[in-house]
Amino acid sequence: MKAIVVERGENTPSLIETPVPEPADGEALVRTLRVGIDGTDFEVLNGNHGGFPAGDDHQIIGHEAVGVVEDPNGTGLENGQLVVPTVRRPPEGSNEYFERGEPDMAPPGTYLERGIDGAHGFMSEYFTSPEEYLVTIPDEFAETGILVEPMSNTVKALEHAFASRSMFDWSPETALVLGNGPLGLLTLAMLDQTVERSYCLGRRDRPDPTIDIIDELGATYVDSRETPVSEIADVHEPVDFVYEATGYAKHAFETVEALAPNGVGVLLGIPEDWTFDIDGGRLHREIVLENKVILGSVNSHLRHFESAKESLARVPDWFTDDIITDVFSPINAEQALSSGNNRIKTVIEFDTR
Amino acid sequence: MKAIVVERGENTPSLIETPVPEPADGEALVRTLRVGIDGTDFEVLNGNHGGFPAGDDHQIIGHEAVGVVEDPNGTGLENGQLVVPTVRRPPEGSNEYFERGEPDMAPPGTYLERGIDGAHGFMSEYFTSPEEYLVTIPDEFAETGILVEPMSNTVKALEHAFASRSMFDWSPETALVLGNGPLGLLTLAMLDQTVERSYCLGRRDRPDPTIDIIDELGATYVDSRETPVSEIADVHEPVDFVYEATGYAKHAFETVEALAPNGVGVLLGIPEDWTFDIDGGRLHREIVLENKVILGSVNSHLRHFESAKESLARVPDWFTDDIITDVFSPINAEQALSSGNNRIKTVIEFDTR
Repeated sequence: MKAIVVERGENTPSLIETPVPEPADGEALVRTLRVGIDGTDFEVLNGNHGGFPAGDDHQIIGHEAVGVVEDPNGTGLENGQLVVPTVRRPPEGSNEYFERGEPDMAPPGTYLERGIDGAHGFMSEYFTSPEEYLVTIPDEFAETGILVEPMSNTVKALEHAFASRSMFDWSPETALVLGNGPLGLLTLAMLDQTVERSYCLGRRDRPDPTIDIIDELGATYVDSRETPVSEIADVHEPVDFVYEATGYAKHAFETVEALAPNGVGVLLGIPEDWTFDIDGGRLHREIVLENKVILGSVNSHLRHFESAKESLARVPDWFTDDIITDVFSPINAEQALSSGNNRIKTVIEFDTR
Repeated sequence: MKAIVVERGENTPSLIETPVPEPADGEALVRTLRVGIDGTDFEVLNGNHGGFPAGDDHQIIGHEAVGVVEDPNGTGLENGQLVVPTVRRPPEGSNEYFERGEPDMAPPGTYLERGIDGAHGFMSEYFTSPEEYLVTIPDEFAETGILVEPMSNTVKALEHAFASRSMFDWSPETALVLGNGPLGLLTLAMLDQTVERSYCLGRRDRPDPTIDIIDELGATYVDSRETPVSEIADVHEPVDFVYEATGYAKHAFETVEALAPNGVGVLLGIPEDWTFDIDGGRLHREIVLENKVILGSVNSHLRHFESAKESLARVPDWFTDDIITDVFSPINAEQALSSGNNRIKTVIEFDTR
């Protein structure tokens, strides 16, 4: 079968031929339909992954997949059923987090991540997976199902954020999404029914397809070159909820200033080390006197994938059409995995028969 | 009646004679037994309060009180009942936070605070209060009831912290309390039944009465001059829960480094502005990859006072005996409100008959 991989020492993708994997007991064989590309894939290509699968000098990339069950192999799945795989897998010997069904809460070093960290991903004609890590989805999500994985991360982030505010009467009216990449835009769409007014921060000029989507969603585009995060409260309004999807470390701290009293900021970006000045006294004081929360969130587990299916069913068709801008066949993987103008979500589409 | 006040332009307390207050409809008249002193009282004396009560050039200080109902005045209270007053009161016209019974979630500028911000406190022979802001306590708390208010702040902080971790299986085994003042020690005692191992940070030499209490509680004393907060994870162990009661702004950020994965740090200190360097990239990344939370908490509401009564009943007698180190009569208020060696909790005791 064809597989898109990163070879040891390389930082561009290669299309290779490799045997179709054999499902082990409890695993199903899945024929891949589509795999989405996100920023993590570029980091994997550039060597920022947790390591190659044991014994291999290449890693199949890709972690946002949708496929169809080709061989249930004795599992409870049915031939032809559409599935989305989760990403984290237990290391040798497993651990408490996987045993509890909470791989997303496993700390670094206690998990493998398919396509990212020590395990092959899904960007190949077939993949295998234990049944427990496959989420069944309706047939109408054959094209959009690649959005379930990123949306599941937002589901978890929102769940934890709301839990942090559950001991008092909290009804957020306003939200600010930092970042107008695919994850930011998906989150903006998911928040559409939760808050009355939303803002999305980017640093692009009009005309731009992401700003068009922000407009269409009824949100307000904030150009960070004109209005930094620390000034949004003054220029627009303090917001009850901030969702950070930029990986820009200063945003984590400026979020405190953007928040309204009793607000929560959830961080999802993963920046490099970066030392800078902050007015730590003022931030500390504001966090306390205004009962604010800063909360980190990474990955997601099965419940979040199940809930993401419902979120996907709720976003309008025009939105998913506009988000998935570029569809490539596997032979054009190198082109798909280079940066392209005006791309939002790029997808590799395998033979869909 | 006698009252201990701060006069406009002064920063030492004065003992004055002032009329016994008349309870309005819905208010009871309470005869004061004891009022505790904390750091906020010193800030009030030094002018860092929200302002004098409307029309007055002095403010009665004190907000940690226990008293006995002298005149129920038609409320549901009974003569002779012991009560602890809450601190926040609605401003003119009230607002949604007070209407919901959540004054602790009211942002700055939307409340008065008795003894602190725009309203007279409780350090006088009598005070009045609406029935709804008086918490009845058992007779055996006549001497220790002054601890209910500070403990209620910890109850709220713990409640919010645990809520933030409620969407997964979180069983904290370790806690770190930053600060060995009365609030830190009370929190350490309250955590005694929640975690297996606890640490308390201070910067004093042995022999010291607070370190003796830390030892007696079975906790580990950490001298910040030898082991800064950022090194506690390495020198001792990463901790699941951090409670910051120092008001030292760097602790808010070093807390991220002290926390174990999935941990929560709750901030209660109120520092001044202070600009310093942080490795914001690393902190941001750790918060995300390890699902950490930093949460601010201020004040408390009735439910937390009710719960604090139960917490007070659970701490051992030797602990409350050792915490309340100094008891002064009102005529010695100036001495009570100066700093004293080896004091932990200082109390003003009115005529207890």
